[in-house]
Amino acid sequence: MKLQLAIDRVPLEKAIQIIHHTKDFVDIFEIGTSLIKDYGMHAVRKIRENFPDITILADLKTIDEAEYEFEAVYQAGADIATVMGAAALNTIAICEEVSKKFKKDYVIDLLEVNDAKLEQLLRFETAIFAIHLAMDQTSLSLESLLETTIGKLKAKRTAIAGGISLQTIPLIKTNGIDIVIVGGSITKSKDPSASARKMKEAIGD
Amino acid sequence: MKLQLAIDRVPLEKAIQIIHHTKDFVDIFEIGTSLIKDYGMHAVRKIRENFPDITILADLKTIDEAEYEFEAVYQAGADIATVMGAAALNTIAICEEVSKKFKKDYVIDLLEVNDAKLEQLLRFETAIFAIHLAMDQTSLSLESLLETTIGKLKAKRTAIAGGISLQTIPLIKTNGIDIVIVGGSITKSKDPSASARKMKEAIGD
Repeated sequence: MKLQLAIDRVPLEKAIQIIHHTKDFVDIFEIGTSLIKDYGMHAVRKIRENFPDITILADLKTIDEAEYEFEAVYQAGADIATVMGAAALNTIAICEEVSKKFKKDYVIDLLEVNDAKLEQLLRFETAIFAIHLAMDQTSLSLESLLETTIGKLKAKRTAIAGGISLQTIPLIKTNGIDIVIVGGSITKSKDPSASARKMKEAIGD
Repeated sequence: MKLQLAIDRVPLEKAIQIIHHTKDFVDIFEIGTSLIKDYGMHAVRKIRENFPDITILADLKTIDEAEYEFEAVYQAGADIATVMGAAALNTIAICEEVSKKFKKDYVIDLLEVNDAKLEQLLRFETAIFAIHLAMDQTSLSLESLLETTIGKLKAKRTAIAGGISLQTIPLIKTNGIDIVIVGGSITKSKDPSASARKMKEAIGD
């Protein structure tokens, strides 16, 4: 499994510090939606400028205007961008096309996607599918979300996000997920470097 | 009816010029999602700084992290912010709450919202409901979208967006919409000021 570190709700300078301290243990750095809405494409350009060699995922959460947004973010230096599964199928098809053109990867975020829509989304075979427990969904648990989704998610590549900590890793491992997305449990810890190392060790290769 | 001018996919300086040229005819200026994703909250602060008295809608398209995003955008100077109807009900409830706290307005964007979800959304009685023909949905028409949605939309305040031009205004008028959202047909015209004036005259008071 790969470790993706989501960086959210911090000043850009702090985001850069976090990357410095954790880059030996993280496979994919996620520039969170909050950083993009706070700083725009500047956040992507600045992080790319500071770290030419890391893998950057920009959590754009595109839901319309796919061509404009995806072209802008890849040109700014992102390797991976995200589109909402709740978007129209045509929007997602445009994301697929632009990603192919730029030889980049894209993620379909399954936030609030029902079973009927999930079925339709599986046509996007090259996408990474992200099971996502929303920040605002405090009444749901990651366990129940995983249980209800994973059986239906016949996708080649999968990711999972939402309040993941060392305790939830064993459960995720048994479900054959490819990318574990961790945020606060590393970025808010007193020693992000040590927390990232422990997480990387827990998930294995 | 009010006229909302959506400004999208232009450099920030150009957006400021457009506002200068059209402000006598426009009721609400929309800082489009593309401007927010390009420039972040700087776009909102800069436009507010240049125009202390206009009404600014920030098309945030929030779909999670509602408290963070809505607080940030109101603090940056927006009067109105948008949340996706496709978001979890709890996310929208947070938007309602933050808007109330800041004494601001909010819009629920009905992009890709099905009938069952629309029914659930009607509990948000203080929201403005925006019928939205997506940029990426070139196979749909505004007419058919309006026909299938308006009967079910028993909301106090409504808006409509998506390829609106002088030709579509009569149809919108007969449907009792409160806010008409126009973009390219004003911003891309050779004389945005004249186009905004004509649109304002066409929609009446």
